[in-house]
Amino acid sequence: MDYQESDFDLTAYLNDKKELINNELGIIFRDFAGSSQIEQAMKYSLMASGKRIRPTLCLAATEAVGGNIESSLPAACALEMIHTYSLIHDDLPAMDNDELRRGKPTCHVAFDEATAILAGDALLTLAFQILSSPVNIKESQALVWLNLIHVIACAAGYKGMIDGQMRDIISEGKLLSLDDLENMHALKTGALIEASICCGAILGNGNRKQIKQLKIYAKNIGLAFQVTDDILNVEGNPAVMGKAVGTDKNRKKSTYPLIMGLKESKKFATSIVNNALKTIEKFDNKADPLRAVARYIIKRKK
Amino acid sequence: MDYQESDFDLTAYLNDKKELINNELGIIFRDFAGSSQIEQAMKYSLMASGKRIRPTLCLAATEAVGGNIESSLPAACALEMIHTYSLIHDDLPAMDNDELRRGKPTCHVAFDEATAILAGDALLTLAFQILSSPVNIKESQALVWLNLIHVIACAAGYKGMIDGQMRDIISEGKLLSLDDLENMHALKTGALIEASICCGAILGNGNRKQIKQLKIYAKNIGLAFQVTDDILNVEGNPAVMGKAVGTDKNRKKSTYPLIMGLKESKKFATSIVNNALKTIEKFDNKADPLRAVARYIIKRKK
Repeated sequence: MDYQESDFDLTAYLNDKKELINNELGIIFRDFAGSSQIEQAMKYSLMASGKRIRPTLCLAATEAVGGNIESSLPAACALEMIHTYSLIHDDLPAMDNDELRRGKPTCHVAFDEATAILAGDALLTLAFQILSSPVNIKESQALVWLNLIHVIACAAGYKGMIDGQMRDIISEGKLLSLDDLENMHALKTGALIEASICCGAILGNGNRKQIKQLKIYAKNIGLAFQVTDDILNVEGNPAVMGKAVGTDKNRKKSTYPLIMGLKESKKFATSIVNNALKTIEKFDNKADPLRAVARYIIKRKK
Repeated sequence: MDYQESDFDLTAYLNDKKELINNELGIIFRDFAGSSQIEQAMKYSLMASGKRIRPTLCLAATEAVGGNIESSLPAACALEMIHTYSLIHDDLPAMDNDELRRGKPTCHVAFDEATAILAGDALLTLAFQILSSPVNIKESQALVWLNLIHVIACAAGYKGMIDGQMRDIISEGKLLSLDDLENMHALKTGALIEASICCGAILGNGNRKQIKQLKIYAKNIGLAFQVTDDILNVEGNPAVMGKAVGTDKNRKKSTYPLIMGLKESKKFATSIVNNALKTIEKFDNKADPLRAVARYIIKRKK
């Protein structure tokens, strides 16, 4: 099986989805009077020029199973809010102490630490507000959305993303085994990516087998995404990335390039992207966006 | 109308409910392997000797409308998790910088700042996991629980508790008007208390009029609770309270005693407790716990 480049225009697809997501976020923010400091900080971080990878994957999964993305947009936005909250908190001085994110001062630099902590809290809470909003949900769909909330809360919680971040902090300065490194990333980055794709597939009425396959796809691209992140932290261009490079080495973080070398890391990323592609090979061309995203992950420069 | 002491044994009631809530939390924590740092920190703060006011009010509201408290226990626990997360974050050095809470070192002192931030995040997320758990919820009740999640997320979010905390921080060192002080407290403390009572009433199948009355009761006792907190910060006994007193004055916080004087503050607390009692005077003796809680608020020493 040859997973070569198709003629699918991923750039146009990503721009289209990003616009859809930003529009939907704009609708949510219409309620924001804009006068309160907490609203300003939430908007500042959420409307920074993020790649919108997780919500786009959510929508792409809906499409892959033949669903209508309109119904997935609120969930997609909620997932981006959870991702953004995690970035705001990760950037805090007590955590990674990063001053630059998406080419802009991080939330605690632009505002202050207290505001950044609260803005993160507020985005996490707003995600669940959106996921339970009577505006977005038909009564007959209540059980589906309750299920989504559960999937997302589990993925974002103490046995998912938060445990991953905790492990990341604890392991700083220690050399992890490959297994521990993979587990850490599966939690820190993988869990929310998997939830994004899972939610998209559920909302698109995917069947059990499709959802199972998409979860395996998600696990693989989630890991590939992280391996590439590690690679970019070694050899990326800070001007293109909008954030500093070399920070992992300075913090003595365990990374794929450190443990297996740069060349092997790139080979590994390629092999897991191929795993992802193989898992969804039976899907029709409505899964082309997912295929293109998988290929993009290892080619991206930021 | 005379709202005198009844012979209702509030101490026994509170102990009984606290035991029920702690047992239910224990069941939730059975899943905790106890080995991970994030689990330890979550448990440390949640299982500290809290008064369990919010979950008790939730259960008492269920009883007041004639419902069965078994069905409200998961929601009660989720509310306590949200309250505990807010305390952990409020205590952080970037916020109130408190080192003692419930007679024990605060989470960031017992662990560290990063762990405390993540433990707060994890408790907030776990609350929504519990509120959407298939273990707790019958399929036919999905819409009710989705509604609860929405009520709680709105109360805890950027237009509720978090905005209150933001306003509290911003106003430090400034003398607020009585209106601004009341609005701040209505958000910071009142919103979650109101949500607790509202959720209990919804789960107890209260009718619309009962829920409306209980919300007014909640607004009044929420404010009374805060006024009393301010009073205790002036004249409370730190050994009894398990936390320092005089901290509001040191931080130049606007408080009821500062703005209206200690004597007037006590009169004000009594008058709003009487408002609360008047609102639920038509409820039968199943609302006696709510009546006793209202009276207790102004008599409490911690």
